Amino acid sequence: MLDHRLPFEAALSGIEVELAPCESELIRLSEALDRVLAQDVVWSEGMIPAGHRLTASDITLLATNGHQKSVAVVRRPRVGVLATGDELVPPGTPLSYGQIPNSSTPLVSACVRSWGGQPLSLGVAADRMESLRECLNLGQALSVDLIVTVGGTGRGDRDFLRPLLRTEGTIMFDGVAIRGGQTTIFGRYRGCPLFALPGTPSACRLTLEEFVRPAVLRLGGHPTAPVTVPARVAEGFRARPLLSFEWARVTRDEAGFQAHRLRGPGVGIWTSMIRANALLVVPPDVSEVKAGDVLEAQLLDAAA
Amino acid sequence: MLDHRLPFEAALSGIEVELAPCESELIRLSEALDRVLAQDVVWSEGMIPAGHRLTASDITLLATNGHQKSVAVVRRPRVGVLATGDELVPPGTPLSYGQIPNSSTPLVSACVRSWGGQPLSLGVAADRMESLRECLNLGQALSVDLIVTVGGTGRGDRDFLRPLLRTEGTIMFDGVAIRGGQTTIFGRYRGCPLFALPGTPSACRLTLEEFVRPAVLRLGGHPTAPVTVPARVAEGFRARPLLSFEWARVTRDEAGFQAHRLRGPGVGIWTSMIRANALLVVPPDVSEVKAGDVLEAQLLDAAA
Repeated sequence: MLDHRLPFEAALSGIEVELAPCESELIRLSEALDRVLAQDVVWSEGMIPAGHRLTASDITLLATNGHQKSVAVVRRPRVGVLATGDELVPPGTPLSYGQIPNSSTPLVSACVRSWGGQPLSLGVAADRMESLRECLNLGQALSVDLIVTVGGTGRGDRDFLRPLLRTEGTIMFDGVAIRGGQTTIFGRYRGCPLFALPGTPSACRLTLEEFVRPAVLRLGGHPTAPVTVPARVAEGFRARPLLSFEWARVTRDEAGFQAHRLRGPGVGIWTSMIRANALLVVPPDVSEVKAGDVLEAQLLDAAA
Repeated sequence: MLDHRLPFEAALSGIEVELAPCESELIRLSEALDRVLAQDVVWSEGMIPAGHRLTASDITLLATNGHQKSVAVVRRPRVGVLATGDELVPPGTPLSYGQIPNSSTPLVSACVRSWGGQPLSLGVAADRMESLRECLNLGQALSVDLIVTVGGTGRGDRDFLRPLLRTEGTIMFDGVAIRGGQTTIFGRYRGCPLFALPGTPSACRLTLEEFVRPAVLRLGGHPTAPVTVPARVAEGFRARPLLSFEWARVTRDEAGFQAHRLRGPGVGIWTSMIRANALLVVPPDVSEVKAGDVLEAQLLDAAA
């Protein structure tokens, strides 16, 4: 059992212990050649080393190996996606007072898909314990390898996830020392690993990247380390005494990489997320970042 | 009409003049949220800037914009894929004397798909002018935006592509000054842009990366420049007086990026391609590369 409000690395190492890659499956060579293979990992030893992420280049070798009829790859992880909240309605439907479109399910699904997982919707849970339990049980019925829920990680009267995990699961950590992602929970529901992410879009996207991404990659047999580059910060800013990830746009010039932090008031955070191609990592012991300082930038959407 | 044996940049600039992005299409928001959007580019001005490559982050903004019913994206380019040669049989079938499995169609298709295009097989052309013409006409019937052929770019009696393009198309360039890719042809068949690539797997994969990749990206509305990093070369090697691209594995250490050139005799080139995560660019005026020299490394499978 891990401590409350873990530092990030400890939280991740906990996850790594908990999650082993999915079992491998044999797929027919003809099917393998038709699939977009960039997201599959070869499991067996042979011409292509075990653990190798298949790319277009490998197709030639697979295709020309005349006597081979199938190829063993790690099965794609099945990830149950659950949004929570009475106020959520499907995107595109007219809104009544107090309603908001459910953006969590499409967001989590798109992320999971881009990391090689297979997203499966568990629906939208209403703010009742029984509704939440029904949705989570659907995940069990669908044999998912991981559940990701969004919202309901606060400590209000209508946040039922924590009490439910306490009675029918385990909580591995409850809260992390990351700005914006503080209320992230990792546990198990009836044996199935579960991440509960905060509901605000930027915190959700951030914790998806920092926690769910390595978990889905690990389940899929991929390396989990993000691609990072050292980047000079273009304009200085004040930092808070908590590990922070800043949406940034990294460009390359003669002298190396330069990072422009993207921030805007209010709705501007969406524009920041959309324009960002990296997350700038600000360690908790840094209180001020000056122009020209070098920080690590995690590249988004980059292959390892 | 461009010159014979063009330098690489001139060839590419010629392609850029020739290829404009595909027209845009409106897709329903619900469909957009279900698609893996990373390969679509938004065309219209609006909340998300025109020319923006959609990623998972954008899903939130699309989903929460309640009154929006559709989104305009660049249509995925349709790319006709044609292998040539009497000796080719489908992968996985038993081989008779003189036969080899057709690895070109799966290779080109996988590459095109990974760059956001839609590959369409035009079959395998036998070594007869009429067979080649039939396959290319199928491309026209399928309204492809680009044709990629593999093999038959030599100057033997059974290489019919060049004479066919001369009578029913145009040849924009015939040969490029790149080691391994010398026999690459770019032209038009009945108005449709066409790349004819050399048939050996490594030359095919190299010219796919250097010519077809930017073309497919441009048709799809994406930026075409490869992601490159400056990398110290781990071990020295002799170079030839021709622009060369060496399969390499780039790693990052404290001092920056380091590139290990991957070479092996004979069949080893396949292992090299499979292990490579970059192409090391050796300019034509470099006759010897020493350990510690810094060269540009084009990262493979990296997003721009």
